[in-house]
Order: sequence, then structure tokens, then C-alpha cells
Amino acid sequence: MGPRVNSAALAERLTGVIGPRATIARGVLDQHGQSESYYRALPPDIVVYPETTAEVVEIVKLCAGVNMPIVPFGAGTSLEGNASSVEGGVCIDFARMNKVLTVHDSDMNVVVQPGITRKQLNAELRGTGLFFPIDPGADASIGGMTSTRASGTMAVRYGTMKDNVMALEVVLADGRVIRTARRARKSAAGYDLTRLFVGAEGTLGVITEVTLKLHPLPQAISAAVCSFDTLHNAVDTAIGIIQAAIPVARVELLDDVMMRGINAYAKLGYREAPTLFFEFHGSESAVAEQAELAQAIAAEHGGRGFEWARAPEDRSRLWHARDNTLYAGLGLRPGARAVITDVCVPISRLAECLTETRRDADEHGFTAPIVGHVGDGNFHMLILVDPAKPDEIDGAKALQARMVDRAIAMDGTCTGEHGIGLGKIDYLTDELGEAVDVMRSIKTALDPEGLMNPGKIFAGAKP
Amino acid sequence: MGPRVNSAALAERLTGVIGPRATIARGVLDQHGQSESYYRALPPDIVVYPETTAEVVEIVKLCAGVNMPIVPFGAGTSLEGNASSVEGGVCIDFARMNKVLTVHDSDMNVVVQPGITRKQLNAELRGTGLFFPIDPGADASIGGMTSTRASGTMAVRYGTMKDNVMALEVVLADGRVIRTARRARKSAAGYDLTRLFVGAEGTLGVITEVTLKLHPLPQAISAAVCSFDTLHNAVDTAIGIIQAAIPVARVELLDDVMMRGINAYAKLGYREAPTLFFEFHGSESAVAEQAELAQAIAAEHGGRGFEWARAPEDRSRLWHARDNTLYAGLGLRPGARAVITDVCVPISRLAECLTETRRDADEHGFTAPIVGHVGDGNFHMLILVDPAKPDEIDGAKALQARMVDRAIAMDGTCTGEHGIGLGKIDYLTDELGEAVDVMRSIKTALDPEGLMNPGKIFAGAKP
Repeated sequence: MGPRVNSAALAERLTGVIGPRATIARGVLDQHGQSESYYRALPPDIVVYPETTAEVVEIVKLCAGVNMPIVPFGAGTSLEGNASSVEGGVCIDFARMNKVLTVHDSDMNVVVQPGITRKQLNAELRGTGLFFPIDPGADASIGGMTSTRASGTMAVRYGTMKDNVMALEVVLADGRVIRTARRARKSAAGYDLTRLFVGAEGTLGVITEVTLKLHPLPQAISAAVCSFDTLHNAVDTAIGIIQAAIPVARVELLDDVMMRGINAYAKLGYREAPTLFFEFHGSESAVAEQAELAQAIAAEHGGRGFEWARAPEDRSRLWHARDNTLYAGLGLRPGARAVITDVCVPISRLAECLTETRRDADEHGFTAPIVGHVGDGNFHMLILVDPAKPDEIDGAKALQARMVDRAIAMDGTCTGEHGIGLGKIDYLTDELGEAVDVMRSIKTALDPEGLMNPGKIFAGAKP
Repeated sequence: MGPRVNSAALAERLTGVIGPRATIARGVLDQHGQSESYYRALPPDIVVYPETTAEVVEIVKLCAGVNMPIVPFGAGTSLEGNASSVEGGVCIDFARMNKVLTVHDSDMNVVVQPGITRKQLNAELRGTGLFFPIDPGADASIGGMTSTRASGTMAVRYGTMKDNVMALEVVLADGRVIRTARRARKSAAGYDLTRLFVGAEGTLGVITEVTLKLHPLPQAISAAVCSFDTLHNAVDTAIGIIQAAIPVARVELLDDVMMRGINAYAKLGYREAPTLFFEFHGSESAVAEQAELAQAIAAEHGGRGFEWARAPEDRSRLWHARDNTLYAGLGLRPGARAVITDVCVPISRLAECLTETRRDADEHGFTAPIVGHVGDGNFHMLILVDPAKPDEIDGAKALQARMVDRAIAMDGTCTGEHGIGLGKIDYLTDELGEAVDVMRSIKTALDPEGLMNPGKIFAGAKP
């Protein structure tokens, strides 16, 4: 990387472009260096709040001119340090680019700015009969979800961001603006640049507009909870449902440790055993049929106390408990921070992977609740650590490493939905070997100076 | 491009690697230069039939050493000259790499060699309860379908190749072999190289292994036919079905001209009016419910004579007619060749795009049947021409150009599923502008000598 201008001088030039929406206020910088996970704070030198693509272009050009790194920032909910400023630089916060630009209701898609959060988007869609289903738990921004290739509880039915982003507007490292696709539901026109930027974690360009698929609101929704004596039985139930082609909208696994946390956090009285939370979407009769089939499959695997929640208030109580697993998990050990990790394996190996991971955590004395999007083979472990005890953090990282190794050995991936960020750079190479060199070639082709979100996905300052 | 060795000398070296499975026999070369469409023959200098990835690596390295172009070849069913040898070179025919490598039935996926065709694959899957649904009409190879980002009649329910390829093994231009992903159902690990190679038409590397998602065979299938007085009514019915979230497995539009061709070709007596062909997949009760809802929506739009086909033999008669639209279309003008083109537009613009295109063809005196995967907004026109009359071919190309311009002006794409190949290079730039430069940068990064399927997607010999 060449010589940089000092950040005060750059901040002054940025102020020339966007006025007081460029700041070097300490509190703001610090806030943009933190994350929900255990990573140390890595603040930027400057934070900017653009309102238009044209402003983003000016910001990128100014940064490029002085070799200043550029880090896009959404809602700050990522879990692998994906939006931290490893080399300082300019953090582009999209809080003010959070508009719905156009709802194409008869086409069932929408064009939004990247700063809008998924909940804001769904609030704006009220009355259209459509919704955006992808739900990673946190109220993440659409830009962040796109860049992380997020998924969450509804992916088993509606896919991940990969499947729901139709087109992107992107500002490249040299300030060019491209649109990756048009608004047709499918296309065979050239390389799939949309999918290249989905999951690139801001390392190839800055996303300034996202066209998303929407889905019709289901006519009926029902939810259910069912507990099992073993993780194996719970997982076999989930797999049985997938293999029977029951279009379940969500099927979430919470292990006994997590159920203990949920009960304490939300003052509930669930059985503290491996538990599946279900949701079914469709017509009244389709939902009833799906739920009956799921209940029958659960019963075959020793499922106990299948509890229905058809009324909206019962469903929200149930899913509120599920949505707060991070805080419920943290509550199991007051004052703790969480080393949060996620892997995804072929579903035939999921029970084995979960059981071995559960045993490994227990044997090493960690309180480490597990929650999984089991229809996809994806699960998370929250390893609770005392942030003041480096030994514990090292132990948690070693436990995480064994979990990732186990997943890769089962032909799985080191991350199903959190991305590589800072935390999984080495694992990416373990998983994909020389393919990572191909990724690096693409990075170099599009960002030769290595200014776009440096330090993420790849090791070293330059790709 | 640097100096080439002469092809006889290269053929000798290739024979050293794979014995008599390298050939320069005229008949074989000519056969590999033809296509199903109107493009002139562009044969390779040598055809090779590897049996292993290791052999493909040796072939690629030998070719790279002497600057010889490399053109992968599947079943030869592509429609835009995608597998023609524009600059001669070595055509890698995957006919002998057509094995199912591993069926992972409990994970619902399969690893195959690229030369297997979709019908062969489904024959091999018999007894597993699983199938591979993507159906572009022709019995294309899986490698070719992957490289073209093919889709077809089932895409409305099961997605395109983009959605059904999980991982690829690829031999790069320098002979390196990479695997783009592991076998998890989702991943957020680094750039999505799988989707980069899906639809790259062999211009970035040679695919030697494909991991595909499979789907449970539906418990019940039913099919139906219904005719309409106008294209508009037929399209509105299809859109109504999509917007009502009815998970229709196929919804195909054939216009009055195509219905005339079908009746003549298959000796059937359908009404010669815009017609929708439906197929529904699911449980017995789900299929019945879907079909009733679809029938009600069709009735609202003046659909006539909704004809059911529940028995397998009735369904196959019905779909056999649909599957032979190319030959049925050609039968409308004996001796003709077809200029075949496809576009895809947002569904809200589909009726307008179809109607204007139909009128344009009629006004210019072309016999040009239309068939569409209308649930996706995708349709094809077969413009019948006398291959001996250059004027007609020019007129057909001008008609095609207006159809593509119309689609792009409606925020659609110049190709929904046939790819860019030779025929749509200029349209790609019309559609995506500077994004095509980004594609070029990627091409240059991965294939600096421009040896991989040159002349496709981009204009000029080198990217």
C-alpha cells in the first residue's frame, strides 16, 4: 500500500463532499470498531454517512486517491468482525441510505438502499401482501446480509441471500458504478456478478442498491414445539421432514443447554432437552397437512409433547424465545462474552457432528449452548467465556477449531452463514485449498490496491 | 495469441496421453462444429475424449503450452453456438466422462461427471425416490447445462442450474484443479466460485465434476391444458398463479402458431389458440388443491376447456407434444432452419412483450411460433427461415434484435437460458454496460491467454 494522506486532511476533503456527515468524533469511531462477538475493537479513522450513490462514488475516489481503506458498515450485527477496520481507513455507514426505492409488487420484487434493515423493509411492505423472509435473527441491514450471504431460520424454505438477491448496484474500487443484472427472474447473460458480490463481504466493491425477491405472505401460518431425548432423534426428525418434501418454513434445533437459557431468560417452562421449533406456511389446508405429517415423523423418533401455536400471539411468544438465543445464551453466565461460531455439514452427518461437538464442549468444561438451522445442516455454538481470562478465550478458540475441523472432515463448510471475516481466514484455506488462490486473483483484478475492506477473507494486507 | 504448433503435431502428443481417443477424423470434427441452430459450422482441429480429470489436466497443459484453444463439448444441444470452435483448437468431448460418481441419497445430492445427460442421470436415480428436475427440453449434458446456466420448464418450481449446482471441480487454464465448494447445503465461505463457473460457458475453465441437488419424487403429479382467446389472458393466468403462491411445477405457454405446429406434428386436435400447459407436484391432496386453484384463476381470465391428465400415459402424451416444439415448429415450414432466440422480462411486462413480438413477427411475414416458460417471464421464438435465402436470415436477425431491445427496455435480459455464445455478444453489452468490463477483468485474471472457449461471451479473440 502506498503512502496515505493523514486522516484529518482526508476528513476535511470528505467534508467538502458530504458536509458534516463525515466525522472523526471518537465515540462514533469506537462504536464502528466494535462487534457483537469477542473480537477486539478495530475502529476506523473516519466515518461517513452518504445519502446517494453519487456521494459513495466521490468518497471511494477520494479514498482511492490517497490509498485509504474503505469499510462498508450496515447495522453492525456481523459476528466474525466482518465490518471492523483492521487497517483503519474510512468506514461508510449506510444508515442514511435506508430507503425503499421501488416496490414492484406485481413482479414480487423490490429495489432498496443497502442501509435498510430487514424489519424496516417488512414494515414498509405492509399492505402489499408480500414479505422478505430471510431472517438471521438480528435486525441486520440488507447490505450487510447481502455481503455476508446471510440466511437464518427461513432458509430451509426460502433460500439464502444468494437465492433472494436479483441484482446489485456496486461502486468499484476505482469509482466505476455497475449494475450486475436486470430485473428478470432469471438470466443466462454472462458471468453471474450478482452472486460474486453476494458474500464478498465488501472486499470487491461497495453495494449501493439491492434488488430483492419478495414472497407472497402465506395465507396461514402455524408453529409447533417438540422435545426429544437425544440430539440424534431431533435431527433425524428434521431430516425426515426434508426428505419427505414437506415444505417446512422453519425447523430450528435448540439443545438442552440452550433450552435452559431460554427458560431462564424468557421465564418459560419448556422441558430442558433437545427441542425442535417448527413453522409451516401455506394455505389453511396445506399448513394443516404439513403439520400433521411433521408430527407423525416426530412421533416416530420419540418426539414428546408436540405443542401447537396457531394464534399469532402464541407464535410470537414461541419465536421470541428462539430469536433471543444470543441473549438467553449469554444469560447462562452473567458477565460472559460469547465466542460464536457456525458450521454447516451435509445433513446425513449432522447428528454425528452435533453430538461430538456437544461432548467436546462438555468435556472441556464450557457452557456452550447450541442452536441450529437443522433443515440445512447448519448450527451455531455460543462458547461463553470470561473476557478477562485469556486462557478461556484460547480454550474456546481451540474448541471452535475442533468443531470446524470436524465439519470440514465431513465435507461441510467452516461457515454456513456468518462469513469469513477475521475469524475464519485460515479455515477457508483448510476448506477450499487452491480455490482460495482463484478468489485472490479475482480480488486483485477488481481491487488491485487492496483498499476494499482489507484484512477480511484473505490473510495479509494485500490480497 | 502466440504461435501455435500445427494441429497434427499436437494430435500426436495428445495421442501420447489418451491413445486413440484423440482424433482428427474429418467426420468427427465436422460433427463437433455443427449446432441445432442456424450458425455456420465452426469445427475444431482435434477432438479428444478424456475419461478422467487427470487426462483433462494433461490435455489442458498440452494445449496451454502451444496456445491452442480449448472448447468443452457436452451433448451439442446448445442454441447460441456456445460449443462451436471459433478459432479451431481442441474440442474436449465429455461423452466418456458420463458416470454417476456418488449418490448421496440421504443428503439428496449426487456427484456426476459432466458428460452425463439429464435423462441418463434420472434413469440412474431410479429406485432412490429422488430426481433431478431441471428440464431444458433437449437431453443436454449436465456439464453443458451447468455452463449455460440452463433452466427450462421446471425452473418455476425448482430453480435453474444456478440453484441446483452445489459444487464443481474445474480444471483451470493453467492446469490447476480446484473444487469450488463442499457438500453443505449452504455456505458463507468466501467468494461464490460455484456460481461464477455456472453460466461461464467454459470461458473460465473446464468443468470435470458436478455436485447437484436432487429433489424427492413427488408423491402425486397431475397435468392440465387450457386455451385462451388472447396471449394476454394466458399470461395473466400464469402470473395470477405465481402471485397466489401456488407452487406450480410447470406452466408453459404455446401460442396459436405453435399449437398449429404441435397439432400437425403430433396428430393432435388441440384448439389453435394461446394455450397453457400445467403440471402440479406434491401430495395427493396438495396437487388437487393446487390444480383447483389454478383452474379457478384460468376461468377468471376466460380459460376454456381445462383438460386434466392424471394418468401417466395422458401426461406423457401431453408433455411429449410440448417437448417437441423445436421439431413441431420446424414442421410448419418444411426445409426451414430456425433462428431461435430467448429473452426474459419481469412478469408484469410479459404480456406486452409477447404481444408486441407476436405482432412484429406477423407484420414482417415470418412464421415464428412462440413458446414460453411464462412463470419466469421467459419466452422463445423460433423464426423459420430458408437457409438458402440470406435476406430472410437478415430479416430474422433484425426481428430478433427488436425482440431483444424490447426485452432490455422492459428491464429484462437478452437471454433467460440459452446463454450469450456467439449470438448475443453485442446484446450483453446493451444489457449490462460496464459490468461486462468487470466480466472481462475476471476472464483475464483466470485465463490470461484467452484459450478457454474463445470468441464466446466477449467480442474479439482475447478477452
